[in-house]
Amino acid sequence: MNQIIECVPNVSEGRDQEKISELIKEVVSTEGVKLLDYSSDKDHNRTVITFVGDKEGVKEAAFKLIKKASEIIDMRYHKGEHPRIGAVDVVPFVPVKNVTMEECVQIARELGERVGKELNIPVYLYEEAATTPERKNLENIRRGEYEGFFEKIKQPEWKPDFGPSEMNPKSGAIVIGARNFLIAFNVNLGTNDIEIANKIAKAVRFSSGGYRYVKAMGVELRERGIVQVSMNLTDFNKTPIYRVFETIKAEASRYGVNVVGSEIIGLVPSKALLDVADYYLRLENFSMDMVLENRIYE
Amino acid sequence: MNQIIECVPNVSEGRDQEKISELIKEVVSTEGVKLLDYSSDKDHNRTVITFVGDKEGVKEAAFKLIKKASEIIDMRYHKGEHPRIGAVDVVPFVPVKNVTMEECVQIARELGERVGKELNIPVYLYEEAATTPERKNLENIRRGEYEGFFEKIKQPEWKPDFGPSEMNPKSGAIVIGARNFLIAFNVNLGTNDIEIANKIAKAVRFSSGGYRYVKAMGVELRERGIVQVSMNLTDFNKTPIYRVFETIKAEASRYGVNVVGSEIIGLVPSKALLDVADYYLRLENFSMDMVLENRIYE
Repeated sequence: MNQIIECVPNVSEGRDQEKISELIKEVVSTEGVKLLDYSSDKDHNRTVITFVGDKEGVKEAAFKLIKKASEIIDMRYHKGEHPRIGAVDVVPFVPVKNVTMEECVQIARELGERVGKELNIPVYLYEEAATTPERKNLENIRRGEYEGFFEKIKQPEWKPDFGPSEMNPKSGAIVIGARNFLIAFNVNLGTNDIEIANKIAKAVRFSSGGYRYVKAMGVELRERGIVQVSMNLTDFNKTPIYRVFETIKAEASRYGVNVVGSEIIGLVPSKALLDVADYYLRLENFSMDMVLENRIYE
Repeated sequence: MNQIIECVPNVSEGRDQEKISELIKEVVSTEGVKLLDYSSDKDHNRTVITFVGDKEGVKEAAFKLIKKASEIIDMRYHKGEHPRIGAVDVVPFVPVKNVTMEECVQIARELGERVGKELNIPVYLYEEAATTPERKNLENIRRGEYEGFFEKIKQPEWKPDFGPSEMNPKSGAIVIGARNFLIAFNVNLGTNDIEIANKIAKAVRFSSGGYRYVKAMGVELRERGIVQVSMNLTDFNKTPIYRVFETIKAEASRYGVNVVGSEIIGLVPSKALLDVADYYLRLENFSMDMVLENRIYE
């Protein structure tokens, strides 16, 4: 696989194993695509599917998945805790290897156009593919959810980017876009004082003056009797893991607290961790080319 | 490529580009094998070729290379600074992915037997494939070199593992074996005092009481006006890079000296650097499975 694009559709079905299997089958049966992971949440009534492939592969697999979902999921009967506006709620394309963000935006547009035309579902483009600043943020688009969207869609500023200008009652609407790889990175502190975790979260996160590509909040790990700075790193090339980690170490020591560990949730591209090794070893000549596997799978 | 074995033949020809190309062609033309690198040294009159592949692929490519070398290299006329006993001097097989050391030993044995039988070249097995403790060490086997081997081979303790019991005048003898991946890792110090580099090298290297899988020596980088601890790490799983690096930092601070940088020469398996990231980030849940690329190329 020379070109790697990751696609992570979120589907509004997390309980009916038969339906979930049918959706996953659409991905697995597509050439040029490899299924990496899927996980369903019964409370959220939602399944997150992760697959990778080349440009044509991911576009085709995503379309087949959306088509199948439009046949077997009926949003009129969907209940779940997670906000959603449609049967396939959101479909991000993520550049991983030998592909630019611009190409992922292009994939999102082409898929969006086809979904609007062939499946008669209203399509909103988000993040890097957004056509207005208000549509960059997923939460912004999704506000009102499926139930409220029958009215929201009528507002001129919420006219869909593709597809019909009214809701598809069975499938709802869909958000498609392109974004950077998102790393879920949590740092555990040697204290049970949630205030300290909150203060450190505030120090590193963008919204309160911290690093541009960090979202963070304090979380209690009650069973372990410690607290955690729970983060999403939304662009590890520009805000690298080690910098955030070192800042948290420094802030924690301000309170006489140690960093006792950290964890990565889900998948992480090798480059994000190789950059960490590069930093701590003070390598003078590091390049991705030095890594054996990168020579093999170039 | 599910199974990855690295093979790094050292060939006694580093000047005649035509001959070097013919040898490399034997590798490139073999199915299931990928050429990663080759570099020739005119003073050494020697070429190091690096390729990877599955079991059958690397065995076949190595045999074809040895056969071609036996046709186009004549050791009777070979001069060069690097010690050598034959046209193809040494052929190590290195387990990289989804393959055990035992399997690499098996490949070395099978190749050795075929080379002895079909090409009439005396074969010595070394490192993990060695049949006696004296043959574990390459330098031990090679002592005396091509010129001295016509006598050495007659000693009962130096009877070859495979092939004829006397030298092949044109091709010499060959050393084949299996070993761990070798990482060339150098740490640069903020001083021009070679004594400090020597003392630190002594502290970390196996031969003088240091880490089991470290070879080290002090080296002057005259152009930069600094010194370096130059190392070979012969088993990064058991003596990891970060541990050696941290020990060097600690020893250097004993002399009031800073570590100004480090460098890796040649290729490094991703796991060796991912282990570094794991260590410094204090990850609690690290596994190679978390790395996106490892899911794709499993």
